[in-house]
Amino acid sequence: MIKVKITGTGIYLPPKIETAFELSKKINKSEDWIIKRTGVKERRISDLDVDMMGAHACKQAISNLGPPDLIINASGVPKQTIPDTSVFIQKELGYSGIPSFSVHSTCLSFLTAFNIGANLIHNQQYKRILIVSSDKGSIGRNFSEPESSALLGDAAAAIILEPTDEESGIVDYRMNTFPEGTDLTVVRGGGTFRHPDNPKTLNSDNYFSMSGPKVYKMARKIVYNMMHEILTDNNLKISDIDLLVPHQASGTAIKAYSKFGGFPEHKVINIINKYGNCVSASIPLALCLAIKDSKIENENYLMLVGTGAGLSVASLIIKF
Amino acid sequence: MIKVKITGTGIYLPPKIETAFELSKKINKSEDWIIKRTGVKERRISDLDVDMMGAHACKQAISNLGPPDLIINASGVPKQTIPDTSVFIQKELGYSGIPSFSVHSTCLSFLTAFNIGANLIHNQQYKRILIVSSDKGSIGRNFSEPESSALLGDAAAAIILEPTDEESGIVDYRMNTFPEGTDLTVVRGGGTFRHPDNPKTLNSDNYFSMSGPKVYKMARKIVYNMMHEILTDNNLKISDIDLLVPHQASGTAIKAYSKFGGFPEHKVINIINKYGNCVSASIPLALCLAIKDSKIENENYLMLVGTGAGLSVASLIIKF
Repeated sequence: MIKVKITGTGIYLPPKIETAFELSKKINKSEDWIIKRTGVKERRISDLDVDMMGAHACKQAISNLGPPDLIINASGVPKQTIPDTSVFIQKELGYSGIPSFSVHSTCLSFLTAFNIGANLIHNQQYKRILIVSSDKGSIGRNFSEPESSALLGDAAAAIILEPTDEESGIVDYRMNTFPEGTDLTVVRGGGTFRHPDNPKTLNSDNYFSMSGPKVYKMARKIVYNMMHEILTDNNLKISDIDLLVPHQASGTAIKAYSKFGGFPEHKVINIINKYGNCVSASIPLALCLAIKDSKIENENYLMLVGTGAGLSVASLIIKF
Repeated sequence: MIKVKITGTGIYLPPKIETAFELSKKINKSEDWIIKRTGVKERRISDLDVDMMGAHACKQAISNLGPPDLIINASGVPKQTIPDTSVFIQKELGYSGIPSFSVHSTCLSFLTAFNIGANLIHNQQYKRILIVSSDKGSIGRNFSEPESSALLGDAAAAIILEPTDEESGIVDYRMNTFPEGTDLTVVRGGGTFRHPDNPKTLNSDNYFSMSGPKVYKMARKIVYNMMHEILTDNNLKISDIDLLVPHQASGTAIKAYSKFGGFPEHKVINIINKYGNCVSASIPLALCLAIKDSKIENENYLMLVGTGAGLSVASLIIKF
């Protein structure tokens, strides 16, 4: 077991709410269509940029613990290309000298960073790691693509990882990436491929685009098999998992964990109706809310699971 | 010691060479000015995008070792915002199912990824990790900023990390980030801050900008102190380091390791005259070339060191 303990949690939910009704006018679809198709009744829209959103969540996570000795930004979309966003979050926190970098695997960035952070703590390189996911998907909405633009919402969430003597930490972790899915979930701009100087670059390249049904079709079996395998390899059954914390990809994707995955609905965290798909922030937001709402007790088994652009899939079993 | 062994190395140097003379016309400065100011006599300019550049280096590193079980892209600038570049590199390599993600700390991305990869191998999560840095800085050159545009060059480099029974691996590693330097090295576009939809976004935001002299002034003492500390903490002297592999930030920055740092010039890898500052690829390119040129023997002590946008500084001592 990679021993580690979550000692702090923080979230930032922008105060501005956009309802399905308000959005319906922008995308020329009915309120009903939005809710049926995506499961999102309302989402938050941030006036702040990702670094400030992240810093709000971090301050709550740090609380009275004192400064971290490492900051990992685990977000889907950066503030700017260079420097990486961790630096701007550290700046907002008023620190200086703390090592910081970013990890990027889109909606799975938090799982990737959690695994990295836990390994660094296990090997005694760091003693208090701040992991923060902050995404402002609203800025990348393409209103001429109604389904994907109706999914996205803005949020940030952060946790603190520290060493522990308890039997607490990562039970197992796995990830797989299938480049057959590179075109299914994209923001084509922002890098070398569709640089603003490139005459081929379209305005739509700067927005988020997702073939939701194709992702769902490709991912369902892969995710199901991965979850089955990780449980079997660790002599665990579905009933041993006290709480499933899935990426809030879409209403349909979350329901699939019960409908096809066999997890009882009350054990699957489902917050998509209130917050939408918050890209990298979805998993830590769901986790932090569950902890704040006392849905998780010591020694509980949690499974964090999800899909990300790539297509990537990952699952992480934590003994809390 | 975090035990790990470099079992494969690969580089990609684009065939197209741009000399200081050729560049001089584009930036309205003399050949002499360029060479004196930056130390860069020529650099490579890539017709391929970063994923293909990276894949070329990876294929050489993998050689006959068989597929890796993890791919870490450790580059400065992505191919596109989503998915992260590791997925595209995996696609070019013809693999499917291999976990992959990106790590971003600009010019220090390779050091960050090396430390992460070594920790994951040490804890037996993976057995053959491919780390690749690929940057096409030429695309971000702002010719109205002669100094920074004269520094950049294109390259990719990759290594394979595997477990070892030998006393080989990371002796020590440290990094520090100082957000006082956020404005000194930037590409402001590509993210949420200077999104193409933002009326404040300027064309120049999509290019690389660096206040070289200010970075140098801020970094010199910090880097010097960090190197002194890491050596002292590990009971090592400068003379114990067989080879210093610095980020190729600028001719002046590399010379400072001898002039002020006390390292004999023949022990400091200096390839900036031929390849320029290749962003994240500079350190692994210098390392891979040194290995290929048999400048490194078993049990040698290497120090990899550099600065990155942030401002971040890092140093990594490896027993080879």
